Amino acid sequence: MHMKKKHGVILTVLIILLSTALIGLVMAQKPEVPSAPNGITIPDGYKNWRLISSTHRTDNNTLRVILGNDIAVQAARSGSTYPWPDGSILAKLVWKDTAHEQWPTATIPGTFVHAEFMIKDAKKYAATGGWGFARWLGMEQKPYGKDADFVQECYNCHTPMKRNDYVFTHPAITP
Amino acid sequence: MHMKKKHGVILTVLIILLSTALIGLVMAQKPEVPSAPNGITIPDGYKNWRLISSTHRTDNNTLRVILGNDIAVQAARSGSTYPWPDGSILAKLVWKDTAHEQWPTATIPGTFVHAEFMIKDAKKYAATGGWGFARWLGMEQKPYGKDADFVQECYNCHTPMKRNDYVFTHPAITP
Repeated sequence: MHMKKKHGVILTVLIILLSTALIGLVMAQKPEVPSAPNGITIPDGYKNWRLISSTHRTDNNTLRVILGNDIAVQAARSGSTYPWPDGSILAKLVWKDTAHEQWPTATIPGTFVHAEFMIKDAKKYAATGGWGFARWLGMEQKPYGKDADFVQECYNCHTPMKRNDYVFTHPAITP
Repeated sequence: MHMKKKHGVILTVLIILLSTALIGLVMAQKPEVPSAPNGITIPDGYKNWRLISSTHRTDNNTLRVILGNDIAVQAARSGSTYPWPDGSILAKLVWKDTAHEQWPTATIPGTFVHAEFMIKDAKKYAATGGWGFARWLGMEQKPYGKDADFVQECYNCHTPMKRNDYVFTHPAITP
């Protein structure tokens, strides 16, 4: 075999091997969830947070579970939620209604709709009641909102709850 | 003051002081939750467990959240729930429906009804599908059942779910 041709084959094989390894590495990594249009990033490990409450909405047929980070859960359990302390994060996980196959009067979580968050920082988010809002849609976790102004929609909807620090959630009572 | 009378006064004061201290001590301790009639004790710290699912039942107007211990949550998230591994504990927290004061089409948790548990041990609980059942009623956490036979009621109700390892709960899907 001609020397130049041999070098060419080795180079080609090397490129293929390296590319395969690189693609493997990239695919093994969890794809990063894009930030919300207002710069808020999705809170780490929110699925492991503790329970604050649960709701069922018949206007849009969704089941919801509200989890909180440690600061929020401590505030909820000690009744210190007016105002919620800075650093509190409330996570609301939302699913479309489905009927239980064996118990038709039981509504269970079907398709995952979105995860939405309220992050308390009285100073940073003073313009929206002290809360930073963000939402990620569906299993693909697509950030909600065309631009940073989407928070006006959140804030307007939460304004009737001003006397509850803009929060709809009432922590569920437990023994 | 007569000597005998003085002793009597001192004794009375001492008794009052000691009783007050004793009552204080007893009240400071958390009252222990009695075991279920089948000997199952209420799992420690179940309120801090992670989320598995949530349901709303319109036949008895209750909202329910299902939490799991680490073994159960790992099984749920990896889809290894047929059968659930030994050591899995499912906790179901149940509240009476209440309407949200500002959002009438939202049902929120009202009065706490009970916490009920399924504890997986295929050998120990072979007679009831491999699950130990227990329930504690209300805020006072009164054990459910007159005697150990109460589990027959649980088991009978769960039998239609035999093909799902006797479990009604379907873990909620999340990203």
